[in-house]
Amino acid sequence: MQIAPRRGGVRRLTWAFLHTEMGRFTWGQAAVVFLIVLSFVLLAIETEPAARPEVRAVASGVDRLIPWIFAAEFALRVWASGASPLYRGPAGRRRFFRRPLVWLDFLAFAPELAVQLLLPGVGPSAGWVRLLRLFRLLKLFSMFRAFREIVGAVRDAGRQLLATFAAAGMLLFVSATALYAIEGPAQPAAFGSIPRALWWAVATLTTVGYGDVYPTTPLGKAVAGGVAILGVGTVALPAGILANAFAERLRRRRGRR
Amino acid sequence: MQIAPRRGGVRRLTWAFLHTEMGRFTWGQAAVVFLIVLSFVLLAIETEPAARPEVRAVASGVDRLIPWIFAAEFALRVWASGASPLYRGPAGRRRFFRRPLVWLDFLAFAPELAVQLLLPGVGPSAGWVRLLRLFRLLKLFSMFRAFREIVGAVRDAGRQLLATFAAAGMLLFVSATALYAIEGPAQPAAFGSIPRALWWAVATLTTVGYGDVYPTTPLGKAVAGGVAILGVGTVALPAGILANAFAERLRRRRGRR
Amino acid sequence: MQIAPRRGGVRRLTWAFLHTEMGRFTWGQAAVVFLIVLSFVLLAIETEPAARPEVRAVASGVDRLIPWIFAAEFALRVWASGASPLYRGPAGRRRFFRRPLVWLDFLAFAPELAVQLLLPGVGPSAGWVRLLRLFRLLKLFSMFRAFREIVGAVRDAGRQLLATFAAAGMLLFVSATALYAIEGPAQPAAFGSIPRALWWAVATLTTVGYGDVYPTTPLGKAVAGGVAILGVGTVALPAGILANAFAERLRRRRGRR
Amino acid sequence: MQIAPRRGGVRRLTWAFLHTEMGRFTWGQAAVVFLIVLSFVLLAIETEPAARPEVRAVASGVDRLIPWIFAAEFALRVWASGASPLYRGPAGRRRFFRRPLVWLDFLAFAPELAVQLLLPGVGPSAGWVRLLRLFRLLKLFSMFRAFREIVGAVRDAGRQLLATFAAAGMLLFVSATALYAIEGPAQPAAFGSIPRALWWAVATLTTVGYGDVYPTTPLGKAVAGGVAILGVGTVALPAGILANAFAERLRRRRGRR
Repeated sequence: MQIAPRRGGVRRLTWAFLHTEMGRFTWGQAAVVFLIVLSFVLLAIETEPAARPEVRAVASGVDRLIPWIFAAEFALRVWASGASPLYRGPAGRRRFFRRPLVWLDFLAFAPELAVQLLLPGVGPSAGWVRLLRLFRLLKLFSMFRAFREIVGAVRDAGRQLLATFAAAGMLLFVSATALYAIEGPAQPAAFGSIPRALWWAVATLTTVGYGDVYPTTPLGKAVAGGVAILGVGTVALPAGILANAFAERLRRRRGRR
Repeated sequence: MQIAPRRGGVRRLTWAFLHTEMGRFTWGQAAVVFLIVLSFVLLAIETEPAARPEVRAVASGVDRLIPWIFAAEFALRVWASGASPLYRGPAGRRRFFRRPLVWLDFLAFAPELAVQLLLPGVGPSAGWVRLLRLFRLLKLFSMFRAFREIVGAVRDAGRQLLATFAAAGMLLFVSATALYAIEGPAQPAAFGSIPRALWWAVATLTTVGYGDVYPTTPLGKAVAGGVAILGVGTVALPAGILANAFAERLRRRRGRR
Repeated sequence: MQIAPRRGGVRRLTWAFLHTEMGRFTWGQAAVVFLIVLSFVLLAIETEPAARPEVRAVASGVDRLIPWIFAAEFALRVWASGASPLYRGPAGRRRFFRRPLVWLDFLAFAPELAVQLLLPGVGPSAGWVRLLRLFRLLKLFSMFRAFREIVGAVRDAGRQLLATFAAAGMLLFVSATALYAIEGPAQPAAFGSIPRALWWAVATLTTVGYGDVYPTTPLGKAVAGGVAILGVGTVALPAGILANAFAERLRRRRGRR
Repeated sequence: MQIAPRRGGVRRLTWAFLHTEMGRFTWGQAAVVFLIVLSFVLLAIETEPAARPEVRAVASGVDRLIPWIFAAEFALRVWASGASPLYRGPAGRRRFFRRPLVWLDFLAFAPELAVQLLLPGVGPSAGWVRLLRLFRLLKLFSMFRAFREIVGAVRDAGRQLLATFAAAGMLLFVSATALYAIEGPAQPAAFGSIPRALWWAVATLTTVGYGDVYPTTPLGKAVAGGVAILGVGTVALPAGILANAFAERLRRRRGRR
């Protein structure tokens, strides 16, 4: 859907630079992605106690600027959207603000800005203020048309994904219960209850295998081995099904051309 | 197969609410799924010694009710099935009870109910009584049409699954024997017999890698590394084959439309 | 290729019971598969020092009988093959013995039998005699037509498998060299040479992750993290490619029908 | 593209032996691949302090010869390329040298040769000189037509790969931040900052699971378990998508025949 901006000099150029609806990647978008990644690097530095205090102070200061930049970008985009025939006039504006992506973009900076403006005493190092920065990720959603690809693939294979996830959940619970019954008496700390055994089951069936808990009795090892062999496939199935749904979308799109 | 219930007021509505044959998900089914999940959460809480005694007592009490609810649901469904033209009359009833899913539903509550009624002295905390609760999972089978999808995919790729599972089994045994021969003298506790080495082989080839046992001699490491590189693919193959069988089913279903 | 045996009473029945060429699974074959699996269970028991001596003695005694049974089965099959029009007469016999599967079957029992007959002083517990038992696995090859499915899938995707295996090999070597350079000074025992770092690289890229060696310096962790994220896909690729080759074979076979 | 060399005796044969453009694998190429693999084995031996000094000296000496052999092969190929009608005459020579693969081949030996000739005092055991040997890997690129297959598959699924990689990156960061917030107070050394928690997140989501860090609080374990179950699929997706792109290329190539 190519929306040709028709008049309005600067506003038209601003729109062409900033709008995110067309699937093409503009330099304005690249700048925003860069800012998001930068802001997470800065956030990571601020939390690191081994970093030097002056480095952390600079990171923190730069990081406080980012919601302002996002707000400016948002305001600019709202203003510039009038350059598009789709969003011109009061009806066009209503259409513009009815799209959920606009509100994701707004949520990406509003909470942090509100804290900076309304609670000036709260420093950026308070734990829950840092968590607000995760909202910035919402901007990425509005940016990558490709994420819609993921949503589409999940919807295509929905029933199969649900079935395999349910099967994986049942396998997790059944194997945790089995190891609780078998290994519980020998290792009460690791297998002495079903929630504890579930930690082992998740670590095993996802093949993470930290190695903090594992069965030690011969029967426990035999059952765990069988569970691992069967389970590896079960937990890997959703990824395989999703990958195939992606491939199918690619094939159909190619076929349409 | 849409079975239109025709007459009989409450019975007809009950049937529409409870019957599970149509692939559509009714609120009655949602309630049953919720009960099953709840019952497993309760079971998990009961086994946790770190939970407070009164919490565990409540969990245990609520949990004892669940087979009664399942029994009531089963009885209701048996009664209401007469509203369907398929299951009306003595011949229809026989047809109803000949379906295996009905008996899975029955098995989902019957053992626990029998213990509660016939062995009132046995508390719900006895280990083997808890294991009876796993029977409740059987209800899920009768519920998700999607599980039939899994069974179908396994049947579609049956021969290939068998071949790759057999190959994985052979690789497991051969690599366990090799490491038993190579590492056995150096680490008798971990590799001193083929069953012991099999525990290492399962943990390695499924890529769980707990880290409780691993080769330490240079030759053992070289062989284990080679086995890991080759083996990772072999043990992951069944999941990949199954995922493709799922995709193929999806494609054929779409093609038929 | 259905080979209808035409005459010869017992010989014809024996052939129908034992011959393995037709892709159908006969009871004779099931018995042989059972014997092979049994023989590996026995071998495993014999090597376990924690097993009781009398159990191990029985296992060992039964195990010595198995190559005799295989030899008898082989002799019976050679004799019975004359019942098939394909292998009748001197020319048919030559055709029979020219097939490689016949020789795999022969190798499955010949080495062990030779040791029992020619070196009667060598007990079955000598390490290298036990390794001879791995030859029995060869019998499985002649049995499962499905293994030819694996060989076919490998051949179909040959060039792609080679390319991804070569890429995985390069990634292994490059990441081992990088960690050797970065982590070597800090952990000479684990990363002090490229062969040592390769052990880490194999455990990481196959996602086994025993946890006996891992980087501890910040730079080492950053590089190892990047390698893990990129590498997991690379090492898992051959399995994915192979799974797709399997699926393609299934689809073509179905298309031909 | 079969390039029939037409005249010029030795030169023509040399070209047929060495040129790498045709997708067919010649003995000359096999020799070069053997030399590359050998050179990495030698490099690995040189770095191993447990190897005997004389072994390491021999490895080092042989290894110094390899760039000379590559240079000779390069010179021979430049000379012999005149035998091909494509690269004959001054215009053909310009075409020959304009191909990037020729320069990869050149880079494969030039840096090491330059060090040996210009800095004769620098021994082969200096760390950065060893790293130069990684340039030899470039020769492999010019050799395997199959690597172009990998590049092509990556390009085919480009947008989907980007989307899933971005999703995996977001999941990594979000789960590291979550565990930093939850587990940070309990385990400051392992989860006390986002960069530290990222090390856990990478090890968990790639399913490597070294086991050096893992959550110990109940809430941390619950969140980590959920992240592992969701994340395993996310991080495995790119490999699945890539495997499907490979399969699609194979199918299209077969369809064209």
